[in-house]
Amino acid sequence: MNEILPDVQAWKPKAGFKLTRVGVTGVKKPVLISRSETGRVSNLVATFDVFVNLPETQKGSHMSRNLEAIGEIMDECVKNPARGLENVCALVARSLLEKHEYATTSEVRAMADYFLERTSPSGKRSIEVYTLIAEARAKKGGGVRKMIGVKVIGMNACPCAMETTKELMAADLGAAAAAVKGMPYITHNQRNITTLLLEVPEEAPVDADDLVDIVENSLSSPTFEILKRKDEGEVVLRAHRNPKFVEDVVRDVLRKVVETYSGLADDTIVVVRSESEESIHKHNAFAERETMLGEIRV
Amino acid sequence: MNEILPDVQAWKPKAGFKLTRVGVTGVKKPVLISRSETGRVSNLVATFDVFVNLPETQKGSHMSRNLEAIGEIMDECVKNPARGLENVCALVARSLLEKHEYATTSEVRAMADYFLERTSPSGKRSIEVYTLIAEARAKKGGGVRKMIGVKVIGMNACPCAMETTKELMAADLGAAAAAVKGMPYITHNQRNITTLLLEVPEEAPVDADDLVDIVENSLSSPTFEILKRKDEGEVVLRAHRNPKFVEDVVRDVLRKVVETYSGLADDTIVVVRSESEESIHKHNAFAERETMLGEIRV
Amino acid sequence: MNEILPDVQAWKPKAGFKLTRVGVTGVKKPVLISRSETGRVSNLVATFDVFVNLPETQKGSHMSRNLEAIGEIMDECVKNPARGLENVCALVARSLLEKHEYATTSEVRAMADYFLERTSPSGKRSIEVYTLIAEARAKKGGGVRKMIGVKVIGMNACPCAMETTKELMAADLGAAAAAVKGMPYITHNQRNITTLLLEVPEEAPVDADDLVDIVENSLSSPTFEILKRKDEGEVVLRAHRNPKFVEDVVRDVLRKVVETYSGLADDTIVVVRSESEESIHKHNAFAERETMLGEIRV
Amino acid sequence: MNEILPDVQAWKPKAGFKLTRVGVTGVKKPVLISRSETGRVSNLVATFDVFVNLPETQKGSHMSRNLEAIGEIMDECVKNPARGLENVCALVARSLLEKHEYATTSEVRAMADYFLERTSPSGKRSIEVYTLIAEARAKKGGGVRKMIGVKVIGMNACPCAMETTKELMAADLGAAAAAVKGMPYITHNQRNITTLLLEVPEEAPVDADDLVDIVENSLSSPTFEILKRKDEGEVVLRAHRNPKFVEDVVRDVLRKVVETYSGLADDTIVVVRSESEESIHKHNAFAERETMLGEIRV
Repeated sequence: MNEILPDVQAWKPKAGFKLTRVGVTGVKKPVLISRSETGRVSNLVATFDVFVNLPETQKGSHMSRNLEAIGEIMDECVKNPARGLENVCALVARSLLEKHEYATTSEVRAMADYFLERTSPSGKRSIEVYTLIAEARAKKGGGVRKMIGVKVIGMNACPCAMETTKELMAADLGAAAAAVKGMPYITHNQRNITTLLLEVPEEAPVDADDLVDIVENSLSSPTFEILKRKDEGEVVLRAHRNPKFVEDVVRDVLRKVVETYSGLADDTIVVVRSESEESIHKHNAFAERETMLGEIRV
Repeated sequence: MNEILPDVQAWKPKAGFKLTRVGVTGVKKPVLISRSETGRVSNLVATFDVFVNLPETQKGSHMSRNLEAIGEIMDECVKNPARGLENVCALVARSLLEKHEYATTSEVRAMADYFLERTSPSGKRSIEVYTLIAEARAKKGGGVRKMIGVKVIGMNACPCAMETTKELMAADLGAAAAAVKGMPYITHNQRNITTLLLEVPEEAPVDADDLVDIVENSLSSPTFEILKRKDEGEVVLRAHRNPKFVEDVVRDVLRKVVETYSGLADDTIVVVRSESEESIHKHNAFAERETMLGEIRV
Repeated sequence: MNEILPDVQAWKPKAGFKLTRVGVTGVKKPVLISRSETGRVSNLVATFDVFVNLPETQKGSHMSRNLEAIGEIMDECVKNPARGLENVCALVARSLLEKHEYATTSEVRAMADYFLERTSPSGKRSIEVYTLIAEARAKKGGGVRKMIGVKVIGMNACPCAMETTKELMAADLGAAAAAVKGMPYITHNQRNITTLLLEVPEEAPVDADDLVDIVENSLSSPTFEILKRKDEGEVVLRAHRNPKFVEDVVRDVLRKVVETYSGLADDTIVVVRSESEESIHKHNAFAERETMLGEIRV
Repeated sequence: MNEILPDVQAWKPKAGFKLTRVGVTGVKKPVLISRSETGRVSNLVATFDVFVNLPETQKGSHMSRNLEAIGEIMDECVKNPARGLENVCALVARSLLEKHEYATTSEVRAMADYFLERTSPSGKRSIEVYTLIAEARAKKGGGVRKMIGVKVIGMNACPCAMETTKELMAADLGAAAAAVKGMPYITHNQRNITTLLLEVPEEAPVDADDLVDIVENSLSSPTFEILKRKDEGEVVLRAHRNPKFVEDVVRDVLRKVVETYSGLADDTIVVVRSESEESIHKHNAFAERETMLGEIRV
């Protein structure tokens, strides 16, 4: 019977507008990715959004083909894990163009929890959770542009309030309070969520773990799952010795990106955003830079 | 034609189990509530969940009657605002029992953003946002039990890390660092979300604003929308002079509830929970007490 | 003491990168907006994100000025309600540029629940909830570009499955099943969330209510809070007589936008997206067009 | 230095109230669980909430011990995967009581995405996503009570609207429309989320996969990731031949639970809830039964 079923998607639409993106969102999938140097394989649970464009002559996109594309690439990854979530996205993006013969562009986004081993100031190991963000955009007859990114939960301590409390304490407690050399002053600190997205060239792979390092080293302090008493004190001290606005966090990430990725092209897209869940406010503080590497190179 | 439409809900179910609650969730409604002493009227946007029980002899509950009950009470409140969101819930709960003749219990929950004017340490006015939580449960032929609650975003500073940094700084910087009298030490602080729910008797209304006061006075510090530099310093100082675990916050709320509501009955339900979005961790710290007033009176 | 407090934000940053946007997110505020023709005033609870850009010479943006800008405009709106949420955003965007003397661009986004009275097929009145989305971007020495948008929850029924079930039923039940003239066939239908964003010129205000109308008329059917039995049947019939893919919904909205806003300029930005919470899948179907009016005019 | 750091948690609280639960929430962890019969091992990413009670004599609970408990059990599971997420929770619950010598009760909850292979009506394989929910409560000197549950996304079609459309179509189209034997009538259908939680005895393990089967067989139809045209039609037909209210779904799950778990004790806790994201409304329909097996056995 199957052959007589009408291909409603191929009908001519009454209102003939082309569409920018048509597809499916919120597709959850187990994915295997590999890390080449170490051979380590990570089991991820990724959530995919995938789209193709649609010409004005076609009523509907064949939605099930999107799921077939994702499913086939995931099956391949079980046997032969792709290197990095951005490459999984690129494989899906290419497959989408093959399956949707009427499409000229495709777009794939994926997010997944990601775990890395970390070491606290006193050397205690823990497993910390991050978010991987990946994207690929393919053009028919053209290449694939890929982005890899990380969302990192860390901590920032406010440099402004620290200066104020120094003055307030000097006024209250006398010169002694302000005179202790090297003494960090109290300030508000809070959970900070910083995201770094970087375009990835075909020939020079970027490792998501390096992006996590860049972000964690740009915060007032990284955070840890297990902090026994002394470790907790050390993290607090570290954060107060590196007070940072969200603006500082974004700029420090940008500086490290410029230093680390000197080999990447000038038109490489870089997005950095840092959001602080302010402890002294009910709202968040936010800073962002959207740019290309060439713009921020000295 | 209407009269011939079959009442499918009244059919006998094949699997004859009674149901605990059947109804609708996520119903958004504009609501007017009044504050009696001041005559002030608040415009809320509340989200309602409403339920009745269902006997085993009835296939379905008449879902549209739930919306009629909510709609009629909201219309009444436009003309004559009910005093407090919990009383709006109680009116809906009673109406549900009238409209669902087969039900013997009804249950109504509502949540809404709520705004109060606050004053910063230096006297600056701001409008702060809170969440109202209300609930009512009615029994056929019986009364209505009501709860009113508030969810408050504030700040807590960790007392444990403060003791540790004092030791660490003494070790690092010499006795001087630890010797400044009255000097608060650095610690991690963070956004804290504390919820207080209190059962409300018919005859002695509880004012949600008082619950907000109780919670804000139990945190290391309340938080404010606008803090110019000096105010910001004062809030930080206040928080560090009142370092509190989530456990301390819950207990201080309990103590104030016991003091404030000496007139309420021993079987009055009290729930207090405090959750800190830890700045030094990616997870939250949490403490809760579910009890009755009689249990926590001395 | 205030005058001696250091202006840490004005310090020169170590990593001297300019930033695209710096500000605050998640600021909740009660807002009054007016509807000019009717004089009707709506009480909204809006959530604001506001930003300015930051030059490379300045360490930090003065975050509290963002809240002052929002607060002052909200106070003005109590006395003299602005016409539409997009105009509230525009007022805040201008104020931001005045308060942040170092900024050359500002950006304001707001979202709020919004209620409109609707009438069911059989004439029953109900209050339906929508989401308003507004945005304004200002340039120092330039104008303000504004967007107003609505997010509408409705219903769409799949035209593809309907063709298939017709075939399947003809095969199963004989020609009689397919031969009833005008008979709509069974198909999967589901909750659909469609968003329409339109740029708004200074001189020719766009009414958000019209945008809601455009979207509701482009769905298989609008949805209603209260549907007694016959009304429910009528809504189901209407949806099945207007089966639509998400692609169809987006295109029908585009067509109506072109027809309705013939007076708007060719470079007016239009964004339409439709997402169906597919009843036959665990994921959603999605279609989007981002364009300018000139692109879609015939 | 570590030994001189003060144990602030052990201090006597000023407001001496005992607390119901103190701990951490939102702890994300990779977990390995095994399925005994098949030997299959599943990689999960679980989110844990863990608590102990706190006596009135103790200021604070030692929060880091909670993370140590979780971490140690996860490490064990890498070598020797526990059978089912509820048993992982039970191991953590026991460990919590050992680590918090002052606690007499502990409580562990976990949620995780979970994947199972499914077969569409025409035999196409796909991987479907579910949510596992597990809980364990331990008492000092007593046993551990465990719950295992699943949250399943499926589809339900409304039986009430179906009866109405039959009448409406007979009125509109003549007797022919109502006279086709076995013909399912149009109705609204939608995504439905049904949760089944079951208490699990030590000696007779319950398999989460069976719970998924029970729920999927109680819906109008399960849903599938990939449905080619004919499969899509079959799923739509199946749903319309099994029209169900949320009330019906809950009752059918209850009936199957009674049949399947005849060996479980009368005091076994059972919770079933079904929520339909109504396609004809902006709100959801909801039904729930909280009971014990003995209550629902005939």
